[in-house]
Amino acid sequence: MGSKHIGMVGLGRMGANMARRLHLKGAEVIVYNRHTEKAIALARETGMRAAESLEALTQALPTPRVVWLMLPAGEATESHIDALLPLLSAGDILVNGANALYENSIAQSQRVEAAQIHYIDAGVSGGVWGLQEGYALMVGGDKHAVNAITPFLQALAPATDKGWLHCGPVGSGHFVKMIHNGIEYGMMQALAEGFAILQGKTEFGLDLAEIAEMWRYGSVVRSWLLDLTADTLAKDQALAGVAPVVADSGEGLWTVQAALAQKIPAPVITLALQMRWASQGRDDYAAKLLAMMRNQFGGHAVQKEV
Amino acid sequence: MGSKHIGMVGLGRMGANMARRLHLKGAEVIVYNRHTEKAIALARETGMRAAESLEALTQALPTPRVVWLMLPAGEATESHIDALLPLLSAGDILVNGANALYENSIAQSQRVEAAQIHYIDAGVSGGVWGLQEGYALMVGGDKHAVNAITPFLQALAPATDKGWLHCGPVGSGHFVKMIHNGIEYGMMQALAEGFAILQGKTEFGLDLAEIAEMWRYGSVVRSWLLDLTADTLAKDQALAGVAPVVADSGEGLWTVQAALAQKIPAPVITLALQMRWASQGRDDYAAKLLAMMRNQFGGHAVQKEV
Amino acid sequence: MGSKHIGMVGLGRMGANMARRLHLKGAEVIVYNRHTEKAIALARETGMRAAESLEALTQALPTPRVVWLMLPAGEATESHIDALLPLLSAGDILVNGANALYENSIAQSQRVEAAQIHYIDAGVSGGVWGLQEGYALMVGGDKHAVNAITPFLQALAPATDKGWLHCGPVGSGHFVKMIHNGIEYGMMQALAEGFAILQGKTEFGLDLAEIAEMWRYGSVVRSWLLDLTADTLAKDQALAGVAPVVADSGEGLWTVQAALAQKIPAPVITLALQMRWASQGRDDYAAKLLAMMRNQFGGHAVQKEV
Amino acid sequence: MGSKHIGMVGLGRMGANMARRLHLKGAEVIVYNRHTEKAIALARETGMRAAESLEALTQALPTPRVVWLMLPAGEATESHIDALLPLLSAGDILVNGANALYENSIAQSQRVEAAQIHYIDAGVSGGVWGLQEGYALMVGGDKHAVNAITPFLQALAPATDKGWLHCGPVGSGHFVKMIHNGIEYGMMQALAEGFAILQGKTEFGLDLAEIAEMWRYGSVVRSWLLDLTADTLAKDQALAGVAPVVADSGEGLWTVQAALAQKIPAPVITLALQMRWASQGRDDYAAKLLAMMRNQFGGHAVQKEV
Repeated sequence: MGSKHIGMVGLGRMGANMARRLHLKGAEVIVYNRHTEKAIALARETGMRAAESLEALTQALPTPRVVWLMLPAGEATESHIDALLPLLSAGDILVNGANALYENSIAQSQRVEAAQIHYIDAGVSGGVWGLQEGYALMVGGDKHAVNAITPFLQALAPATDKGWLHCGPVGSGHFVKMIHNGIEYGMMQALAEGFAILQGKTEFGLDLAEIAEMWRYGSVVRSWLLDLTADTLAKDQALAGVAPVVADSGEGLWTVQAALAQKIPAPVITLALQMRWASQGRDDYAAKLLAMMRNQFGGHAVQKEV
Repeated sequence: MGSKHIGMVGLGRMGANMARRLHLKGAEVIVYNRHTEKAIALARETGMRAAESLEALTQALPTPRVVWLMLPAGEATESHIDALLPLLSAGDILVNGANALYENSIAQSQRVEAAQIHYIDAGVSGGVWGLQEGYALMVGGDKHAVNAITPFLQALAPATDKGWLHCGPVGSGHFVKMIHNGIEYGMMQALAEGFAILQGKTEFGLDLAEIAEMWRYGSVVRSWLLDLTADTLAKDQALAGVAPVVADSGEGLWTVQAALAQKIPAPVITLALQMRWASQGRDDYAAKLLAMMRNQFGGHAVQKEV
Repeated sequence: MGSKHIGMVGLGRMGANMARRLHLKGAEVIVYNRHTEKAIALARETGMRAAESLEALTQALPTPRVVWLMLPAGEATESHIDALLPLLSAGDILVNGANALYENSIAQSQRVEAAQIHYIDAGVSGGVWGLQEGYALMVGGDKHAVNAITPFLQALAPATDKGWLHCGPVGSGHFVKMIHNGIEYGMMQALAEGFAILQGKTEFGLDLAEIAEMWRYGSVVRSWLLDLTADTLAKDQALAGVAPVVADSGEGLWTVQAALAQKIPAPVITLALQMRWASQGRDDYAAKLLAMMRNQFGGHAVQKEV
Repeated sequence: MGSKHIGMVGLGRMGANMARRLHLKGAEVIVYNRHTEKAIALARETGMRAAESLEALTQALPTPRVVWLMLPAGEATESHIDALLPLLSAGDILVNGANALYENSIAQSQRVEAAQIHYIDAGVSGGVWGLQEGYALMVGGDKHAVNAITPFLQALAPATDKGWLHCGPVGSGHFVKMIHNGIEYGMMQALAEGFAILQGKTEFGLDLAEIAEMWRYGSVVRSWLLDLTADTLAKDQALAGVAPVVADSGEGLWTVQAALAQKIPAPVITLALQMRWASQGRDDYAAKLLAMMRNQFGGHAVQKEV
C-alpha cells in the first residue's frame, strides 16, 4: 500500500475489534472515539495510537488519508462527516463501514465527493467473531479508491483473497450487505422454527444440543448460524430466563423494502421480519381486534388483559 | 314435511338458538340436554317440549325420527351416538350439526348407517346472530334423507331458498363448512391488519369506528365481518382490557391440513392461523432461540424473562 | 350547496360513471377529457355539458369552483394540476379523486394551497358498480372545503348519510382508501384460496357456484367480494381461458410499505401481494436457483425451460 | 464390531454411494438391487460382493445380520421388508435409511419387531456429496441395536465422533431428519430470495457468483447451501434454460404437518413449501379466480390463457 496508515473513527464493538485486527496484521492504526478514554484504553492495550480529536487524527495521518467510520447510521455518522470534511484534503478516502441504507450512502457520497474526497461504502459482517476469524467485507466505490484501501480489506478479511469484494459503484457495498442480512433473517427463522418443533416433540426426549452439534457435520443445513445455535443449546437448551422478544436492527426491513421496490416476492425474509415484530408485541392491536370479532360472531370469551 | 317433529340434542349457544328458530318457524321441537334443567328452562321459555332422557326423546318423536346433534366434536358426540343408536329405528335420520372434521364424519356415518340409520353431516354457520338472521347450512348425505329434513333446513336458513345447500355425499357438508371457516380466518386477519395500520397512523387522528361504519356502504370490503368490526369499534376503539390473545377452534387448522393434503398453496389462511398461535405464545421457544442467536453473533443484549 | 356546479376532469371508467351519478342526482356537471370526443359523447348521452379545454371548463364554473380530478396518479394528474392552477382563483377547490400515494397527495396539496386553492384528497371505492350502488368516499382536507363539497359527496355515496367520511387532514383520505384496498387484497386471497381447496376436492363433486351463492346468506364470510365471486362462478366455474396471472395496481404495495414504516406485522396483506407477483412470474429467478440447488446437493433433475 | 458385514439393499444414488463409502472404510459390504445388473456393476467396480437375491444376501451375511434398506418409502420399502422377514433370524437388525414419515417408521417397526428383528430408522443426509464428505446420520431405535451398527455409522459419518447421533427411540431418527429437511427448505428459500433481489438490482451490475463466493468466508450466512449456490452461480448466473419449477419430495410437507400437529407456528418453513407448490402451478385456480374478481369489481382486463 502507498501508506500503512488508517484512521478508525468509532470504537464500539465492531470498530474496536476491527482496529485490533488491522493492528495485528501490521497496519498503523490511529483510533478516535467521541469519548476519548475509549481510544486511550484501546491504545494502551494494543500499542496503537489514539487521537484526542478529529484534528489530531487527520494531522497524524499521511496523505492521501484513509479514514474509516464505524458509527451508528444517521446523526452520528453525518455529524462526524461534517466535522471531518474541512479537515481532509482532496484525494483522501472516507470509508463508511456502518450498516447503512444504501440510498443514504449514495446521497452521502455526493456530499463527500463534492469536497474532492473519495467515498467508499463498506458492508462489514462478522460480529463479535470477526477479530479472530476475519470479517466479510462488501465495498462499493471508485476502482482507484478501492485499490488504495485493498491492503486494509485484505487484513480485515479472513484471508487476503477471500471474504472481501469490490461489488460495484458507491452504494453497492451497503446494498449487498443489506441483502446478506436479509438472508440471515430468513435462515435464522428457519433454524428457530425447526428447533421449536423438535423441542415440542417431548415424547422422543430429544437432546437439542446433541442434534445441533451433529448437524454441523455432513448435513445439508451445516452453517455458521447452526454453529452458534449449537453453542447456545450446549449451554442451556431450555433457554431459561430468555424473554421471547427478538429485536431487529434495520437491514431486514431495508431488504424487504428493496424487494418491494423491485416487486420481487420475498415471503420468507418478510415473514422472518414480521415474526420478530410480532414477538415485540407490534401485532397486539390486530390480535385484540380478532379476539373481539370472535366474541361478536361466536360469543367466544375474550381473555382480559392483565 | 312428512313430520314437523325434530329432536334437538345439545343446548349450548348454537343448539338452543337453533331450537328457538325452528320453534318460531312452526316446527315441533323436542329438546334434550345432558343437564336436564337446561332443557326444561328452554321449554318453559318457549313452550316447546323437553325430554328428560334420550329414551324419552326418541319415544316422543314419530318415526321416521329426525334427531339433530349440536354437541362438541369428539367424545361428547360419539357417546351420544352410542346411546342413541339402540333407541332409533331403521329409517330414522341422525344429523350431526357440530363443527367436525369431515373425515371423522365419514367414519361416523359408517357406524350409524350400519344400524340402518341415515346420517347427515351439517355445517352450520351463523353464531349468535343465527336466531335472528338465519343460519347458513351446508349438508352432506343421501338425497332422500336430505329431502326429508329440508323443511327444517328451510326454517333454519335465512330464507327457504337461500343460505342452505345439499353439497354432496356424506362428509361434504362438514368439508364445505370447514373451508368456510378457513376463509373466515383469512378475512378476519386481513381486516385486523388493516385496522392495526390505521390505528398506528396517529398523526391523522383517525376515528376507526367511523371508518369501519363508512366502509359498510359502497366499499369493496363491505362484509358481515366488517359489520361486526364496526360494532366493536363503536363501543371502544381502544379495545381496552382485551388481551392480545386469539383462540382458534379447529376448522382453521383442518383447512390448512386439507390444503396440504392437496398440495394447494393457501398461504393467507395458513398465516392467519399461525398468527393466532403466535398470539397464544406458541412461538416463544423460537423467539428465545432467535434472541440468543443474535446475542451469539452480534453481542446483542437479550431481554430477561420476567 | 353554494353551487350545484362541479367540473369533472378525466372520463375513464371511474370518472365517467361518477359524472353520470352526479348528474342523475341533480348536480350541474361539466366534463372535460384530454380527448375531447369522450367528453362530447358523454354530454350527448346524458345532457350534461362538455368543456373542450380546461379554460372553457374553468370559465363555465361559477366561483368558488369545484374541480374533481379522476386521472391516473403521477404525470397525468400533475400536468393537469399545472395547467389548472393558473386558471383557478383563490378559494376554489381542487379534489384529487384518483388512487394516489397519500404522501404524494400531501406534497401535491402544498403546491396547490400555495396558490390559495383548497385541496382535498378523495379515495373513491366502488368500481364499475358505483354508478348504480353508490361510491364509498374517504376524503381528507380542511373542514370548510369538505363542507363545500359535501353535497357532491352525498350524491356520489350510496346514501346521503352513508358511505362517505371526512377522515382527517389532507392525505388521510388517500391513506384510508389505501388501507381499504390492502384489506381487499387479503380478503380476495382468502376467498381464492378457499375456493381453490374446494375445487381440488374432486371426490365430492362440489358445485362451487352453488356454494358461493349459498354462503351469501347467513354465513360469516358473506361480503360483496363473495357476491362477485358467486357471479363469476355462476358463469363458468372452470374459469376456462383465464390465465393464472393477477395484476396489482399500487395500493396493495403502498399498504405493505405503510405497515413496514410503522413496523406493524401485516403478513396476510403482504402475502396476498407477493402471491400476485409470483403469479406474474416475478419469483422465477428464485425458483430457478432453488431448482439448481436441489440438483447440486441431491442430484435431482432440473426441468428445462421451454 | 461383532461383524464387519453389512447388506445394502437398494442401490440408487444414495445406496450405491453409501455402499462405496462403507467399503472404502473397510466394511464387508454385500449389495443387492432388484435389477441385479446394478449390483453386479457396483461389485465389479469396487470389489465388494453382489447378491443376486435377498436369499443369497441373507445367506451371505453372518448372524446377527445387519441389513440396511435404501429404498423409496412406501410400496418399495414395504415389499422388501415382507420378503426379508422370513429370511432373517431373531436378533438380526434391519435399518431403514430412506426418507420416511416417522409415524410410518414406528408402525413398520412394530411389524418387524414382532418377528424378533431389531428395527432402526436412520435419517441420512449428504446427497451426492456424502461419498466424499461423509453422511450426517440420525438414528432411532433400541440402544443395543444402535450399538451394534455403530461401526457402520462411524464409517458413513464425516468422522467417527461427528455427524451421527442416536436421537432416541424408534421414529426419532426419521423425525429429526424430517425437521432437518424442513429447515433446509427455509434456508434455501431465504438464499434464493436474497439472490433474486440482487439479480433484480441491475443498476449496480452485480456479479452474483463473486458475491456468493465472497460470502463463503467470514459472513453470517456462510453455509454449505451457500457453497452449492456459489458453485451453481459460478457456472451460469443467468440460470439459462432452467425452468422456474421447484419440486418437493415429502419431508417439507411432513415438517409442516408436524408443526401443525403441535400448533407451533412455522411460517417460514411453511411458505418455503408453498412457494415451491406455486412454482409448480398449484395455485393456478386461485390466481384465475383473483383475476376474474378484479375484472368483476374494477373492469380490469383478464389475461387470456394460451
